[in-house]
Amino acid sequence: MTAAEEFISKIKNLTKDDFIAETITPLEELKEKSTEHMKCKIELFVTHLQAVVINKLREYESSAEFNIDRWNREEGGGGISCVLQDGEVFEKAGVNISVVWGNMHPEQVKSMKSRGKDLVVEGKNTFFATGISCVLHPVNPFIPTLHFNYRYFEVLNESTGKIIWWFGGGIDMTPNYLIEEDVLHFHTTQKNACDKHNKEYYPRFKKWADEYFYNVHRKEHRGVGGTFFDDFDEESIDACFSFVATCGTAVLPSFIPIVDQRRNNEFTKQQREWQLVRRGRYVEFNLVYDRGTKFGLATPGARIESVLISLPLVARWEYMHEIKDGSPEDILMKVLKQSKDWA
Amino acid sequence: MTAAEEFISKIKNLTKDDFIAETITPLEELKEKSTEHMKCKIELFVTHLQAVVINKLREYESSAEFNIDRWNREEGGGGISCVLQDGEVFEKAGVNISVVWGNMHPEQVKSMKSRGKDLVVEGKNTFFATGISCVLHPVNPFIPTLHFNYRYFEVLNESTGKIIWWFGGGIDMTPNYLIEEDVLHFHTTQKNACDKHNKEYYPRFKKWADEYFYNVHRKEHRGVGGTFFDDFDEESIDACFSFVATCGTAVLPSFIPIVDQRRNNEFTKQQREWQLVRRGRYVEFNLVYDRGTKFGLATPGARIESVLISLPLVARWEYMHEIKDGSPEDILMKVLKQSKDWA
Repeated sequence: MTAAEEFISKIKNLTKDDFIAETITPLEELKEKSTEHMKCKIELFVTHLQAVVINKLREYESSAEFNIDRWNREEGGGGISCVLQDGEVFEKAGVNISVVWGNMHPEQVKSMKSRGKDLVVEGKNTFFATGISCVLHPVNPFIPTLHFNYRYFEVLNESTGKIIWWFGGGIDMTPNYLIEEDVLHFHTTQKNACDKHNKEYYPRFKKWADEYFYNVHRKEHRGVGGTFFDDFDEESIDACFSFVATCGTAVLPSFIPIVDQRRNNEFTKQQREWQLVRRGRYVEFNLVYDRGTKFGLATPGARIESVLISLPLVARWEYMHEIKDGSPEDILMKVLKQSKDWA
Repeated sequence: MTAAEEFISKIKNLTKDDFIAETITPLEELKEKSTEHMKCKIELFVTHLQAVVINKLREYESSAEFNIDRWNREEGGGGISCVLQDGEVFEKAGVNISVVWGNMHPEQVKSMKSRGKDLVVEGKNTFFATGISCVLHPVNPFIPTLHFNYRYFEVLNESTGKIIWWFGGGIDMTPNYLIEEDVLHFHTTQKNACDKHNKEYYPRFKKWADEYFYNVHRKEHRGVGGTFFDDFDEESIDACFSFVATCGTAVLPSFIPIVDQRRNNEFTKQQREWQLVRRGRYVEFNLVYDRGTKFGLATPGARIESVLISLPLVARWEYMHEIKDGSPEDILMKVLKQSKDWA
């Protein structure tokens, strides 16, 4: 049974306890329509995945708690933003979902057409977008920062009734120190997940991640990559959902064993400072290159605190920060300068 | 005697001790040609101003020292980057000059024409650009962050011999706490400097600063503003230089009395954290909006460490950071939400 089949089989038994807060679309409506409408199925999936991730992270924290904001968007929809700060294991953990809809301006439709979407400009176009995004900045410098994001977008032309849809997503890991077995574990778990659907997906989406998570002005990768895909509408909508469900289900198995392995590693003040310098680079990537962040900052009325949830609690910029040849810091930087096949 | 006249009168007596490092163009050549060529006069001015500022800052630091990098640019020219970190009074102080020249691509010429520059696309165009830029992040949260930048640009069409030139620059102050008398002192000093040249300059350039130093996604000004101007080529080239020289000369008198007044203020851990949250906003502005930073990041072969010298040593992003109504933090934020006439 695939992850998607397993999830679908339990939809009718889902209760409010399977979510962090009330779903954006009423739960009963989602359950009722989920067999017919992908937008209901995917909203249920991402909102439930949010709860699964948060409940796992909660196991590590005895006092710090998730701040949970359920917000509404005036033009339609809303989201659930969950952030934990200053925890024992996680310095900052943000796990957001959003479910938004509304009318599209003809200019937006034209712009999407120009990037290859088969849309009809005439008539009223409405959009529906939902996604989960998460960034985890651990306390221990030997645990990498983790990011993932899975999303679904559809445009309905109300005159023709035609729906254009696609999925996107990705996951990537940003270590401060290279621990090869951890990177191997992460990439192997990702590869195995992809391989269940199509043996070509992992090499293709791994390459895409290497290209996307790249800090151009520093001439270095953000981290050791992962997988990334966009405009994903291959085979059938159910096949695409099935793949995305597998990806979502593979998040915790890709990362949690690393947390368990490294959370009690001892570290020095100097290693903490290196972590903060690396977090400065994370800030640079997110503010200068990350599509989601740039889109959020440029969107009037966007919820900025949710858009910038990915930024670390603390970051540092040291002028001409030097690292010794052959040091653990240098070993990491050498890996970030190139793309490497891990799995 | 204006600041420019005063500076010009001492050019022939300048020695290498009046600069932080060897000038980019040989000093003797600069002195010889400075009566005829603006580019020599302005290079001397900014390189000398760099030394004046650095020598003043050094008076506050008993152990931290400026790291001085004199660098060359393969395509022509170079710069002197000076940074002090972890000082007693200044947590990070960057004072850079650059003097660069080279050939212009026809595309660059076209792009400049489109923003109103009267350039000739045909034939070989060469450019010369020089400027000083400085950001001071003090340790004490009651001393604002200071930024200033003054620059000169010229394009020579080698076929026609025609030179198109302009100046640009600005100064702005970013406090963490509102101390009205300090803001008043800063703006009044700026106004008095501008008024010596043209009573319309201060209101015009103050308004421009309010518009430029604005963090759109936060809907707040970066700080309490200052002055900003670009494409400045009014009256004569000598009148423009004279104004810019006055601005450069007004930097220390605008800011140093505030440093002296506040450097020994006691502050709490909570006030330090607020300073770091505000520095996060500074990072956001610089990476997302600042023209100079964006231009630098997008320029292949740019010296990234110099481009990003403006970033603070440490910054902090707290999700949904809350401040109490009527608290000193709230009083500052209310001021940053609007433009205010200070002088």
